[in-house]
Amino acid sequence: MSDTERQVHATARRAKEAAAELAPLGREAKDAALHAVADALVAEAASIVEANAEDVQRARRAGEPGAMVDRLTLTEERVAAIAGAVREVAELPDPVGEVVRGSVLPNGLELTQIRVPMGVIGIIYEGRPNVTADAAVLCLKSGNAALLRGSSSAYSSNTRIVEVIRGALEKTDVPVDAVQLVPGAGRDSAQALMRARGLVDVLIPRGGGSLIQAVVRDSTVPVIETGEGNCHVYVDEHADLDKALAIALNAKTQRCSVCNAAETTLVHRAVADRFLPRFLADLADLGVTVHGDDAVLAHDDRVVPATEADWGTEYLSMDIAVKVVDSLDEAVAHIREYSTSHTEAIVTDSQSAARRFVSRVDSAAVMVNASTRFTDGGEFGFGAEIGISTQKLHARGPMGLREMTSTKYVVTGDGHVR
Amino acid sequence: MSDTERQVHATARRAKEAAAELAPLGREAKDAALHAVADALVAEAASIVEANAEDVQRARRAGEPGAMVDRLTLTEERVAAIAGAVREVAELPDPVGEVVRGSVLPNGLELTQIRVPMGVIGIIYEGRPNVTADAAVLCLKSGNAALLRGSSSAYSSNTRIVEVIRGALEKTDVPVDAVQLVPGAGRDSAQALMRARGLVDVLIPRGGGSLIQAVVRDSTVPVIETGEGNCHVYVDEHADLDKALAIALNAKTQRCSVCNAAETTLVHRAVADRFLPRFLADLADLGVTVHGDDAVLAHDDRVVPATEADWGTEYLSMDIAVKVVDSLDEAVAHIREYSTSHTEAIVTDSQSAARRFVSRVDSAAVMVNASTRFTDGGEFGFGAEIGISTQKLHARGPMGLREMTSTKYVVTGDGHVR
Repeated sequence: MSDTERQVHATARRAKEAAAELAPLGREAKDAALHAVADALVAEAASIVEANAEDVQRARRAGEPGAMVDRLTLTEERVAAIAGAVREVAELPDPVGEVVRGSVLPNGLELTQIRVPMGVIGIIYEGRPNVTADAAVLCLKSGNAALLRGSSSAYSSNTRIVEVIRGALEKTDVPVDAVQLVPGAGRDSAQALMRARGLVDVLIPRGGGSLIQAVVRDSTVPVIETGEGNCHVYVDEHADLDKALAIALNAKTQRCSVCNAAETTLVHRAVADRFLPRFLADLADLGVTVHGDDAVLAHDDRVVPATEADWGTEYLSMDIAVKVVDSLDEAVAHIREYSTSHTEAIVTDSQSAARRFVSRVDSAAVMVNASTRFTDGGEFGFGAEIGISTQKLHARGPMGLREMTSTKYVVTGDGHVR
Repeated sequence: MSDTERQVHATARRAKEAAAELAPLGREAKDAALHAVADALVAEAASIVEANAEDVQRARRAGEPGAMVDRLTLTEERVAAIAGAVREVAELPDPVGEVVRGSVLPNGLELTQIRVPMGVIGIIYEGRPNVTADAAVLCLKSGNAALLRGSSSAYSSNTRIVEVIRGALEKTDVPVDAVQLVPGAGRDSAQALMRARGLVDVLIPRGGGSLIQAVVRDSTVPVIETGEGNCHVYVDEHADLDKALAIALNAKTQRCSVCNAAETTLVHRAVADRFLPRFLADLADLGVTVHGDDAVLAHDDRVVPATEADWGTEYLSMDIAVKVVDSLDEAVAHIREYSTSHTEAIVTDSQSAARRFVSRVDSAAVMVNASTRFTDGGEFGFGAEIGISTQKLHARGPMGLREMTSTKYVVTGDGHVR
């Protein structure tokens, strides 16, 4: 075992002990701690911005692109917004203790299944230092200890934010070790976290596809896969084409860099001649590059020929793949082959088409006559989300506080034996 | 990629295609298929017993112990019992399509979270050929394709049972490839299944601890850990000692070879002098070997000194570890250190003791004044179980049909955009 591994596992053991203290705490104690954290973030905003300046300077010197530097940058206003988000989490209902089901068994045993914290949640994430506070607070509210492993690019900011949070927790009932930064920001510290089975209950990677795939491949700790979204909009032959146009454009362009943005539009051949000219013209006006199949190319000479790779690409940019299909079933088959199972939408006025699409598309969210952009914890009314699960085990779709819990059966008898 | 891996992955691809056909089938179609399977098992009982005889003969020649040979053996009566169990599964409610939650969002979008099949479930299991039919049928009823990888010791029986099931499915709406035996019974075929990420949605190992740990370590497919049970009974200072005696004896001896049998009894020092003499005498009468700490040794010279290893051992035999503790908190700390988080019981008449134990013991099931032996899908009223999960992700405790499903969000609008 390397030094880093030893250090990371020692941190995880402290987290496990803290989790045992944190789990039985009631909502009042947890919310008081969250408000203390928010107060401390506001009070220490200047020192957080100062620590952040080191990360920003390093990124600038390394010639990082402006958008990346912007995502990294904290100002006192941004820190205040983070503190505000912490207070919003405090307002959310506590998922812990909820009775999921309950009954009296024929032999008189009382059976209840209740929601309990997971224990220790490891979060492996990339550049944005606001994730540090967000993730810590969602873990605390759901009764879990947080082990945070941010990127080296934000190490100075993350270190200071965690110091401030831990300082605030000292005066509360929540144990300080319920929030810890994993020592080191190298690849070995992430690896050590992935191998801490028995100490860490679940790992949630937040970031790009390569980060997520690396965690899925290497972790012996159970992982919840999040966020990759090769989302599709299918314009059915029975679509209202005005709605279809609005939805297809919104899904691509309202915010193209996020996982619930659409990457491919599939258009039924029966409406292609009426739909495509308007759609392609609007996309061009909005600055979107279209990668199209032959049928799409025939409509507009600004269209770039699509390659096989385009159908599987999550562009996260002002690019879109467009394909004409002969049937709903061909659209479903295309989606089953290329989708990351995040979100797919159908635009149709046909009940039977909607029913067939919904039952045959195997994705976390299926939209009927609505933009893919609605797959979001906030939009779904969960108040906050730790990520969007694209796997089928445990949680699927936006993960709110409830999805950060497990359950436990409590069985009460009066001397019952078999 | 080896030949075995290619073959296993080809099998998994067929399973994935079958799963897409199976998922939208309604209960009527699935139940009709289950009854056809039951009919075929009865009709083909003789050929199944004949195939089984080869496995039994091989086991006898290899000098396997009698209990193992018995578990492997099928008779026409046992095949009839398997068919009866298949019909019982057909009687259970279909979990697929259940609305888990639903609401109308402020913007008018209709949000429903519905239960959907996982897709392809891989089951890796040991000797007993009845698991082949049980697992296949639970997968079918929950809308999942089953990839079965049994042990080489039952290969002939398993092959015939799967042939019979597939033959029965040919005349139903359920695709034949919804039930397949993984080709080969060597270690490489299990490994290939564990690496079939993207083709297999979840792997459930059923068997001993070493099998389960190997799957957990090597699989890139998400795994549900099942079945290891180092279960504890804690006799509190406020226990009714008659109830405590009945529960502690039942938990150990009613059926000592199963995962919900107790392996350790913890006794509060305040009641040790009154409880232990009766308990140790009864255990001796029942033929149980006691591994005790010093305080227990002092009571009875038939007690064997417990070593550190005893506290962590799942005996699955007529052995028990017994320890005297100074407090409920010491009992909880012992359990947190050594338990496999399956089931723990407290015997107490104190509300506050029960409350503290329940909130601090982090196990799938916590019993108050009841035997650990009640942690079971049948006892809990689930009708059938695929295993007992000892992990926190996805399912915890007995896994019935509902735990073999995932969910999907269906969002219906009328041209909604953000």
